[in-house]
Amino acid sequence: MTAPTERLVVVGGDAAGMSAASQARRRKGPSELEIVAFERGRHTSYSACGIPYWIAGDAAGPGALVARTAQEHRERHIDLRLGTEVVEIDPERGRVRSRDAAGHEEWTGYDHLVLATGAEPVRPPVPGIDAPGVHGVQTLDDGEAVLRGLERPGARRAVVVGGGYIGVEMAEAMLRRGLEVTLIDRNPQPMTTLDPDMGRLVRAALEGLGVRVVSGAPVRAVLTGADGRVRAVATDTAEHRADVVVLGLGVRPQTGLAAAAGLPLGAHGGLLTDQAMRVRGSERIWAGGDCVEVLNLVSGEFQHIALGTHANKHGRVIGINIGGGYATFPGVVGTAVSKVCDVEIARTGLKESQARAAGLQFVTAVIESTSRAGYYPGAAPMTVKVLAERRTGRLLGLQIVGGDGAAKRVDVGAVALTAGMTVEQITALDLGYAPPFSPVWDPVLVAARKAADAVAADLAAG
Amino acid sequence: MTAPTERLVVVGGDAAGMSAASQARRRKGPSELEIVAFERGRHTSYSACGIPYWIAGDAAGPGALVARTAQEHRERHIDLRLGTEVVEIDPERGRVRSRDAAGHEEWTGYDHLVLATGAEPVRPPVPGIDAPGVHGVQTLDDGEAVLRGLERPGARRAVVVGGGYIGVEMAEAMLRRGLEVTLIDRNPQPMTTLDPDMGRLVRAALEGLGVRVVSGAPVRAVLTGADGRVRAVATDTAEHRADVVVLGLGVRPQTGLAAAAGLPLGAHGGLLTDQAMRVRGSERIWAGGDCVEVLNLVSGEFQHIALGTHANKHGRVIGINIGGGYATFPGVVGTAVSKVCDVEIARTGLKESQARAAGLQFVTAVIESTSRAGYYPGAAPMTVKVLAERRTGRLLGLQIVGGDGAAKRVDVGAVALTAGMTVEQITALDLGYAPPFSPVWDPVLVAARKAADAVAADLAAG
Repeated sequence: MTAPTERLVVVGGDAAGMSAASQARRRKGPSELEIVAFERGRHTSYSACGIPYWIAGDAAGPGALVARTAQEHRERHIDLRLGTEVVEIDPERGRVRSRDAAGHEEWTGYDHLVLATGAEPVRPPVPGIDAPGVHGVQTLDDGEAVLRGLERPGARRAVVVGGGYIGVEMAEAMLRRGLEVTLIDRNPQPMTTLDPDMGRLVRAALEGLGVRVVSGAPVRAVLTGADGRVRAVATDTAEHRADVVVLGLGVRPQTGLAAAAGLPLGAHGGLLTDQAMRVRGSERIWAGGDCVEVLNLVSGEFQHIALGTHANKHGRVIGINIGGGYATFPGVVGTAVSKVCDVEIARTGLKESQARAAGLQFVTAVIESTSRAGYYPGAAPMTVKVLAERRTGRLLGLQIVGGDGAAKRVDVGAVALTAGMTVEQITALDLGYAPPFSPVWDPVLVAARKAADAVAADLAAG
Repeated sequence: MTAPTERLVVVGGDAAGMSAASQARRRKGPSELEIVAFERGRHTSYSACGIPYWIAGDAAGPGALVARTAQEHRERHIDLRLGTEVVEIDPERGRVRSRDAAGHEEWTGYDHLVLATGAEPVRPPVPGIDAPGVHGVQTLDDGEAVLRGLERPGARRAVVVGGGYIGVEMAEAMLRRGLEVTLIDRNPQPMTTLDPDMGRLVRAALEGLGVRVVSGAPVRAVLTGADGRVRAVATDTAEHRADVVVLGLGVRPQTGLAAAAGLPLGAHGGLLTDQAMRVRGSERIWAGGDCVEVLNLVSGEFQHIALGTHANKHGRVIGINIGGGYATFPGVVGTAVSKVCDVEIARTGLKESQARAAGLQFVTAVIESTSRAGYYPGAAPMTVKVLAERRTGRLLGLQIVGGDGAAKRVDVGAVALTAGMTVEQITALDLGYAPPFSPVWDPVLVAARKAADAVAADLAAG
């Protein structure tokens, strides 16, 4: 048997990296392409997004969160090296230096390199932040640490720091584990991916569930007890008792390795790639997942969005291209969905401040409707907000907060944004209607109608 | 007070007609526009789509199914005449002849005429079809008649004739009322708005619920007992005992009045309009709702689709135009959603036979996935089928059968069809992802990926 003609090296064994490896393998067998994948942790291809549901007790874990195990990857002839960290990239000579758990180092040459180093949780630089009992929610090990924390005798009070997706999902999880939950957020309203008027609905939902929401309150210190473990979280004005603290402050791209190798980073610290997911200025280096920045097709600006669905798409595109095919990732429109118990939350496109920052002028419309026909059981209230560009009427953004069946309606906005539709065009869309699924006018259409009227009124006003 | 400058006459007091009246009224007050609406029945603006859920006991009825009562319309200065039928249109002189319940006739002149005469259930021309105990499901009076039939002592067996939306919804309703249900359908599979391979899943769902599905069996006669009431439904090979029979054979446009006035009808018997919903060749006559044909934007052909959501859109467009504004109804893409107990059914675009009839060549892809992340509770199986045009890869159709959360995903296809997207473009769509709402690859994207591969393979094969 002759040696393979090419070697692909993957750095990071999660969604983007292993999708790239798998996709490349589908197109090129082991005789053509050798694939070596380095992962410093113990798991591959897991769903970080599933951790809150595991902690809440909805999902089994951690095994169930692993989409494909190390063994499965190895069966597909991917030389997967767990517990092995890449510590240096040498783009000149086309090689990476790795270090295994025993401290053994070696250089591995590549024909193609995929950087999928992910993101790391933001930890505010305050005293005590590294105390035992303070947890990120990024890896399966983090999830296990949180669960162990909850099982400690006397664990009764949880403080969640940060009111974004992870924050509200973890607040729900803690609540459902029977803890008293305080959510501390530096912003005036939780869920700042929504406009404040919509964030207020999320706050009301959290409070309705019994979460104490402390807004406009940056964390100043984590206070510890005599045993060295966390005992409270301090803001400027109060101390909030805590037996366990969860950090939900978002993540930032983990790109130190790439930066050291001189690869181009964007304003948010993520790697910059072309639409084929090749690192800009590189011939043989590709990048995807939480370590890259993505083009927002609505704002025209690069953003950092850590989301498993993007990572999987990136990996697939990279793998196809390395495998000799052709695929692109044109960008995102900023879609996100979440829920807090029965309240669903969704957004796509730009919120008001993002539109302003992109130089776009807009009108807005907010409507109240229901997720099903009003007479159908389980019809739940939903609020829909639309942003439409002045003059053109082009859809710029869609936000939804509502009951069962509300959130995934945001996909209509995601497709319409991608297609550059106007709100007037949206009013005519042939969306699915039957009483168990929608009022006769889908709430998204009602919001588009109101936005179209606002565009017209704005035009009439000059 | 001077007389209004114009008079709008509306024929038909349901969704299309009363939406047109309401929208025109919003734009022109009673001093500018007099509105007279004739409705031969007893109710206005009701949801015929809600009748199966009322009969099943899910929804209160019939009042709850009325979106706006006669009284509410009258408060908005609409001169609504219930129990009064328009029996002739005289387009030359711009007037209609009406007849009230007492047989009194009169002519009413119009400046604008809106025809919203709806549709009537198809009744097969077989012996006994008009026997007591055989019911359509079109009006609230029909609904009450079915309920009275179910309450008769000894009512134990229901036969539903027709396996389309109304048929399967009524089968579920009867089942939930505790009846033994037989569904008799002339087609090889129920739900012929889907391809047979997808219809088979609906059949399995019905049978799983305990409905006896008799396919490929046209009804030949309704047999009556000594009391003159229905006792069985006969096909070529069997008699099916029935205490109550429900006709779910679809509807046809009710356009006798329009035909007699020489207005243009299409191949399916519906009125033909332009995009502003003005009857072709007419200056002052508009039409909307179940009595018109609509352009299918994918096939390029006119179709008859009776659906409340279209009727409401038509009415709004007509009312805006009559009121001096501008709006259009560009057409449909053929979206429909339904459910049988926990099994959701959805389709948009063209099924295989429709694509062929339109001269389109295509590839297909069918995938199995789940409605939520696999590890999330309530993740239900769903099957997705995609039709994509050969060579161009343009999406032609999408069909879904699956559990909770499956059906409304069809809206992604509806928007993509409207925008003319290819399946390759769909693979990159930024759809909402979080474990409670979707696997990391939304099932629609998975199907689009497989279809894109099929398009490529077909191209490669020449």
